[in-house]
Amino acid sequence: MHVLSNEDIDQLLTMPECIGVLEEMYRDYAVGQALLVPRIDNLSPSTEEGAYYGFKQMGGAWPRRRVQALRINSDIITHPVIAGKPRRVKEPKANGRWVGLVFLFSSETGALLAIFPDGAMQRLRVGAANGIALNHLARANARTLALIGSGWQAGGQVMAALAVRPFSDIRVFSPRSASRDAFIAEAKLRHPTVNFHNIDNAEECVNGADVIMSATSSMVRVLEPAWLKPGVHVSCIKAQEVDQEVIDGCDRVVMHVTAQPKHYDNIMEGTPNIYAGPKNGWWSKLGDKFADYPDLAQVVAGRAIGRTSPDDITCFVNNVGIGLQFAAAGALVLDKARAAGLGHELPDDWFSETVHP
Amino acid sequence: MHVLSNEDIDQLLTMPECIGVLEEMYRDYAVGQALLVPRIDNLSPSTEEGAYYGFKQMGGAWPRRRVQALRINSDIITHPVIAGKPRRVKEPKANGRWVGLVFLFSSETGALLAIFPDGAMQRLRVGAANGIALNHLARANARTLALIGSGWQAGGQVMAALAVRPFSDIRVFSPRSASRDAFIAEAKLRHPTVNFHNIDNAEECVNGADVIMSATSSMVRVLEPAWLKPGVHVSCIKAQEVDQEVIDGCDRVVMHVTAQPKHYDNIMEGTPNIYAGPKNGWWSKLGDKFADYPDLAQVVAGRAIGRTSPDDITCFVNNVGIGLQFAAAGALVLDKARAAGLGHELPDDWFSETVHP
Repeated sequence: MHVLSNEDIDQLLTMPECIGVLEEMYRDYAVGQALLVPRIDNLSPSTEEGAYYGFKQMGGAWPRRRVQALRINSDIITHPVIAGKPRRVKEPKANGRWVGLVFLFSSETGALLAIFPDGAMQRLRVGAANGIALNHLARANARTLALIGSGWQAGGQVMAALAVRPFSDIRVFSPRSASRDAFIAEAKLRHPTVNFHNIDNAEECVNGADVIMSATSSMVRVLEPAWLKPGVHVSCIKAQEVDQEVIDGCDRVVMHVTAQPKHYDNIMEGTPNIYAGPKNGWWSKLGDKFADYPDLAQVVAGRAIGRTSPDDITCFVNNVGIGLQFAAAGALVLDKARAAGLGHELPDDWFSETVHP
Repeated sequence: MHVLSNEDIDQLLTMPECIGVLEEMYRDYAVGQALLVPRIDNLSPSTEEGAYYGFKQMGGAWPRRRVQALRINSDIITHPVIAGKPRRVKEPKANGRWVGLVFLFSSETGALLAIFPDGAMQRLRVGAANGIALNHLARANARTLALIGSGWQAGGQVMAALAVRPFSDIRVFSPRSASRDAFIAEAKLRHPTVNFHNIDNAEECVNGADVIMSATSSMVRVLEPAWLKPGVHVSCIKAQEVDQEVIDGCDRVVMHVTAQPKHYDNIMEGTPNIYAGPKNGWWSKLGDKFADYPDLAQVVAGRAIGRTSPDDITCFVNNVGIGLQFAAAGALVLDKARAAGLGHELPDDWFSETVHP
């Protein structure tokens, strides 16, 4: 049984590889050859005033690679009001650290193969999904990217975008200039041939861009419908960044996953201060219309149509993550870790038994 | 982070302790102070002809002890036909071993506290649930126990029964005499003051007993309704061991859990040879009537009536296990393991991270 770290995974898994293995998985998923294990958020009271405990679980089985993944997040969550709006904040209460883990099992033997933190892979798989969508939906000649957001996830979006199109110019907008400066300084080091532009106005950032990628934690839309011009491709990393009006302004909308449009909440009585989030957001208003959009896997597998003309406005909504992404990327990382001799190896017998219930 | 073994748990957790901590948890659960995370069985194809891969997950949060448990089983499953009937068999494909694990988290900090195999605790918690039911439902003066079954779980039933009533005589029936002989030889060593009787006929075994406990893997009823005499208490470890006719012959029926009457199946297309089991069994026929039975927690908490007279025929149906049992017993075992210095300790930093998705 292998224990890997975020550093191991950052070192082992490149964005192009992650995109490759996820594409392979989406093709299987599109034809029923991968099993989605639904995301469930289990919420119960914490010991802290105003905080609650969130235990999130999602998973997936991918028979082609003989893996089953289970990804969990074990979080103390608060909802401080910041700039007049409630924000969902995960408190690092485990010795100043967060707890998100992936457990990888063999569907051939049942054995627990690996445990690793979810952070590094989380960013890669979110970026990879948006990169795959970009590859299938954006114009082939797209060269200018507008990025809304300058946090950790925004970095993954840039890596994914550059893996599928040779963008020459990337414009970065986010509300705080210090954050933009820091982001661009780091991005230039990683992508020295790209021209990064620091823009202090969202509309100016997106105006004339071939692709707009949003990577924020905003709970309200970050784009105005009027900003979407013919030929543009738009993507986001959570549903709340766009809304029905933005969606309605697009010619072709693709969801990440339609089988589970949002997570299921399992909430204990007395859990304080529940953040309504997606439950009362535009998803519920979208209602039946939701099922009309294809999902990413269908587009990847050629079972749904992507862009049909250079003037189409296309949109990818990364509405919910799936554990299958961790199954796919996890299988690849484990192969590479074994080959490279990285990680801690623990006795298999600690994680198996001679009796069965 | 602690890694414990089945041997550690067998050494640390006694049946009376397990019964005690489970009673405490059921009292909280009855009043909404514990969160049940549903059992989901995820089934997908295996590489082996005729086999499939089953990934079972269940869990629970118990705020009083600040724990969240997740229990998983990762099994290669076949359905050989034995004596004309299909049986559900878990193949030990992980180096000849099975894979069932409990992950215990802190709901105060989020940290992963412990990992241990589920086997030893599985038997204790199944036994404990039936013992708690026996304690609340059987006559106080019960002294003769009829046990149907002589496997591993049957041993847990005997431990539980003796923890709550001073049975002087235990009659054991199972179809194979060699299995009975072996079971009784071992039981005598563990319980030297009890008279064990080896009985080769089910009706004779139960006739005149104060309590009947069934602990088999049978998919059809193991009791005839006519065998139930006034005053007897009947219990089983899976719903299939009794049927609607047996249930209808009882004055008072208590289910283990009514919030989730059976597990949910999440099945990938093309998964071979699915065993219908509970899905098409008497549960579905029971239909709406099911909700009329109280659950064990309600009886423990005094919110439902148990036995009302010495002549009542009472029945406990241990219809489905819940992850909350592992949360409760797990919290206790971990406290004891720390105090005793048992188990392997691994660096907490391996199972936490400095980023959060």
